[in-house]
Amino acid sequence: MQGLAEELRRLVAEARTAQDWGAPADYIPELAKVDPEQVGVAVCLADGQEIGAGDADVPFSIQSISKVFSLAAVLGRLGDDLWRRVGREPSGTAFDSIFLLEQEQGRPRNPFINAGALVTTDALLGGREPRQALSEIMYLVRAAAEDDDIHIDKAVAESEKATASRNTSLLYYLKSHDNLRCPPEMVLGTYAHQCAIEMTCHQLARSGRMLAMIPGAPAMISSHRARRINALMMTCGQYDGSGNFAFRVGLPGKSGVGGGILLVAPGRASIAVWSPGLDGYGNSKVGTWLAERIADYTGWSVFAP
Amino acid sequence: MQGLAEELRRLVAEARTAQDWGAPADYIPELAKVDPEQVGVAVCLADGQEIGAGDADVPFSIQSISKVFSLAAVLGRLGDDLWRRVGREPSGTAFDSIFLLEQEQGRPRNPFINAGALVTTDALLGGREPRQALSEIMYLVRAAAEDDDIHIDKAVAESEKATASRNTSLLYYLKSHDNLRCPPEMVLGTYAHQCAIEMTCHQLARSGRMLAMIPGAPAMISSHRARRINALMMTCGQYDGSGNFAFRVGLPGKSGVGGGILLVAPGRASIAVWSPGLDGYGNSKVGTWLAERIADYTGWSVFAP
Amino acid sequence: MQGLAEELRRLVAEARTAQDWGAPADYIPELAKVDPEQVGVAVCLADGQEIGAGDADVPFSIQSISKVFSLAAVLGRLGDDLWRRVGREPSGTAFDSIFLLEQEQGRPRNPFINAGALVTTDALLGGREPRQALSEIMYLVRAAAEDDDIHIDKAVAESEKATASRNTSLLYYLKSHDNLRCPPEMVLGTYAHQCAIEMTCHQLARSGRMLAMIPGAPAMISSHRARRINALMMTCGQYDGSGNFAFRVGLPGKSGVGGGILLVAPGRASIAVWSPGLDGYGNSKVGTWLAERIADYTGWSVFAP
Amino acid sequence: MQGLAEELRRLVAEARTAQDWGAPADYIPELAKVDPEQVGVAVCLADGQEIGAGDADVPFSIQSISKVFSLAAVLGRLGDDLWRRVGREPSGTAFDSIFLLEQEQGRPRNPFINAGALVTTDALLGGREPRQALSEIMYLVRAAAEDDDIHIDKAVAESEKATASRNTSLLYYLKSHDNLRCPPEMVLGTYAHQCAIEMTCHQLARSGRMLAMIPGAPAMISSHRARRINALMMTCGQYDGSGNFAFRVGLPGKSGVGGGILLVAPGRASIAVWSPGLDGYGNSKVGTWLAERIADYTGWSVFAP
Repeated sequence: MQGLAEELRRLVAEARTAQDWGAPADYIPELAKVDPEQVGVAVCLADGQEIGAGDADVPFSIQSISKVFSLAAVLGRLGDDLWRRVGREPSGTAFDSIFLLEQEQGRPRNPFINAGALVTTDALLGGREPRQALSEIMYLVRAAAEDDDIHIDKAVAESEKATASRNTSLLYYLKSHDNLRCPPEMVLGTYAHQCAIEMTCHQLARSGRMLAMIPGAPAMISSHRARRINALMMTCGQYDGSGNFAFRVGLPGKSGVGGGILLVAPGRASIAVWSPGLDGYGNSKVGTWLAERIADYTGWSVFAP
Repeated sequence: MQGLAEELRRLVAEARTAQDWGAPADYIPELAKVDPEQVGVAVCLADGQEIGAGDADVPFSIQSISKVFSLAAVLGRLGDDLWRRVGREPSGTAFDSIFLLEQEQGRPRNPFINAGALVTTDALLGGREPRQALSEIMYLVRAAAEDDDIHIDKAVAESEKATASRNTSLLYYLKSHDNLRCPPEMVLGTYAHQCAIEMTCHQLARSGRMLAMIPGAPAMISSHRARRINALMMTCGQYDGSGNFAFRVGLPGKSGVGGGILLVAPGRASIAVWSPGLDGYGNSKVGTWLAERIADYTGWSVFAP
Repeated sequence: MQGLAEELRRLVAEARTAQDWGAPADYIPELAKVDPEQVGVAVCLADGQEIGAGDADVPFSIQSISKVFSLAAVLGRLGDDLWRRVGREPSGTAFDSIFLLEQEQGRPRNPFINAGALVTTDALLGGREPRQALSEIMYLVRAAAEDDDIHIDKAVAESEKATASRNTSLLYYLKSHDNLRCPPEMVLGTYAHQCAIEMTCHQLARSGRMLAMIPGAPAMISSHRARRINALMMTCGQYDGSGNFAFRVGLPGKSGVGGGILLVAPGRASIAVWSPGLDGYGNSKVGTWLAERIADYTGWSVFAP
Repeated sequence: MQGLAEELRRLVAEARTAQDWGAPADYIPELAKVDPEQVGVAVCLADGQEIGAGDADVPFSIQSISKVFSLAAVLGRLGDDLWRRVGREPSGTAFDSIFLLEQEQGRPRNPFINAGALVTTDALLGGREPRQALSEIMYLVRAAAEDDDIHIDKAVAESEKATASRNTSLLYYLKSHDNLRCPPEMVLGTYAHQCAIEMTCHQLARSGRMLAMIPGAPAMISSHRARRINALMMTCGQYDGSGNFAFRVGLPGKSGVGGGILLVAPGRASIAVWSPGLDGYGNSKVGTWLAERIADYTGWSVFAP
């Protein structure tokens, strides 16, 4: 796409003038330390080009974006059996809410709210050791990105485990409804580590090519599966801000409290934006703005011809 | 698209062998009378072709599909002012639920649940007479479909008004939160009439061309607006079955309890399917099956390249 | 009880020095006009004595206290059949909440939240004209108080009907679950009139003797029924402030947004306190304080020997 | 009270003919083993008499009845500071519900639902060792009952800990809202042990004399505090069946899933009934029937003169 590289630089420059960057997640001490006034973007195009702007080479914690990768991994292992334990509907409630879990007796609404992601990780473990499940996710991510340098930030993982009361509560709740197979601490540890995967915008955009079904990218998952994961990202990827994100941006996306957002323009591009400050729903504030501008400029909305 | 006409005939023939057609909506007496073992489909293609199969010329009550047209009409009048009164998020609850309305103090989650559609109709009325608002919707629908024969079935409208306690409750609830401008009975009457618009699959598919942005179709709304309405249909169009519909079908759609579903394949086609029996979410049972089969055959999912 | 008359005067004098009287209900225009800095109390003792202090002869709108009288009247007509349509449990939610009504499919939790009181009034109507049901309530109240001067303030009734959107919403919700027999407007009108009964503290205390089972008072209801109504007042009489009221005061009570509270000390006294300003739960602020002081002074808590 | 001893024998004999005894709690393996067809009752009268009937000397697990004793103990230590962390309102939801805890951000509605009891136990621990807190409860119970033979059934405590996922979930939820001071496992262990206190009807009735304020009973708590605990038992003591229990029985009571119910007739008697089978709310089925019959026979309802 002609001129996109220049436009990305222009948008990043404009983003840097933001009055309000939002605040980094404060419930994970390691994340709270990150300088909020950073912004980066990287795009992998269908013709194999890869362009970026701003802090596109700064590694950040992908956090909930990892839910996409653990979902892809577990669907590869279990196929549709997963859906007996997790739904596919937007929840209409906050990412860490327990209300619907009570109403629906322990079956989380979708794999992108915390309860659903914990069940997904439990299913991926499937009685194996945490390091085996983590290896599987890391293999998927590295192979998809064609980059073996991607790693887990242990300090963030430990920081997360230390403040994980809400997730622990969700785990025991799932267990009380017999929707957990492995010990809660094991699932929590595995989950904390997958959330602590560190990537740059370039790495994240490359790993997203499997969802965008970019020709020439490593074939990690079937296109049938990629389409369905994209659908879940569209309806559930930004927690209770998903509808508005679809309305404004028009691309499947998955956000993380580290400030990253992975965006998928099927057949056209895989996009990663990052800025650590969050809005009230836990999604990157400047990142969402940037995503909307890119969608406007490129016309890549899946809802356009 | 080569072979689609034949495939539609094949799919309709297969659909006719369904063991379980679902049950027509029983809370509106006039709809309960409809023979459930009917199924039709019509497709308007980007090249101007129009094909159909099965009961594609049988008129049916579009019911909630009218919410798309009233939304398009009111956005044309008010623009983004509407969003002060209605949200854009999936509700995670049933179409006639009042729970979230209490929690969010009278601001409906989106314009496609009943509470949100009632606010939309109230905004369209804007102090005018019901027939003026209805004329505006009818003008939009007829012009979009290029068919002046489309009309309102008065018997259905009356039947609906007679059993409208839940909607009346929602209206007074909105009023108690000062989110209603016109008298409840006036909004209810207008709403009952818009829901009672009767169309065939062919007519509905033609009117949907404005959302699919098919070249040559009458330009009723801007492409910017069409994209955003499509996004809302994707995240909220099938009530609390929206996530699953996006997962299985991958196209923006809006269902009605009359058994119709309008599907949008941006730039490619506008599709209408119809079969009166409903599933547990109030969406057409055989219609949803047919939508999924068509999406599979054509590969038109917006989540595919 | 020796010294009580003097103590009441002392307490009223202390109450008059209140810094914060609370605010009168503002959703009913006629009530919003009332001067909040008023306070009265009247007590009917088991020995036939009747004592009072402060504004004990100023008439006020009894509002929700009327729910006690309509309940007594309908139990007289229907007996336990009422409980098929209304529960006997505290709701844990606000007096005008619709949430539980959705969860429990149209069966209100108890007769003292608005939804339950509307069902009670509907049952009292039982196909009759509003004036017949109202006559029955008025007969009960007047006979219990031995005072034919008690009347309905029509201006308040009209004022209430004019701002009754929430109650109308509840009525149609009940109707949608088939838990309403009479037309909603008829129930609403009857309910607005019963709430607009005007009484002084003296009159209210006298009418409460039937619940306190004071010897010599007119025998309006059986002691078995009185006990059960007292139990409901204890667990549900102050909306979602009932538990705290039981904890602090220890007497069955029923409050109204007019600022009155009827208190029952079985076998000992019937008490009415009144002060128009409300706390956050919709209960009289100074009235609750006064009730607690009286309970402390007299030791009449039902939870004491 | 003349004839009560004989009436108790008569009622127990009638109870033994019950068609439906209900089912013992099945989520705690040790309790599920108990023979459901047992029923006992003991009464301590104001004149010092103690009478019983049926299986009044069979020890049973008091379970949630222990919440009354831990509350009494912690109020003795902390006084009203506890109420900053726990409310005093009926919850309107099941005993192990987490819904309101989310809505009210980690402050349980009252000390008798599980979440509130866990906070109470945490407050009693107050940084001490579990055995110190347990000693304090045991001292209170034994001194109140004047019986040093009361002990904790370790097998039940272990059985409970092994199936405590829901309570663990509640504990971490409380912790996530900063309403827990001690480690969750420590609170859980202490709580499991207090619930596993084993008593006979005679022992339980004797320990309840402090709440009934029976002359001559050991003075363990002030009458002011006893009154307030009685009020909480009345409004919250039988979970979401509390309103109905007050309506039918008219006495403050606290039930446990072991099938026991402690009843308080202030100034008159302390009563313990027991039968292991439960109704749908988790309260003893035959025990509730027996409680109602005793209240009818004695006329001790606090709502009667």
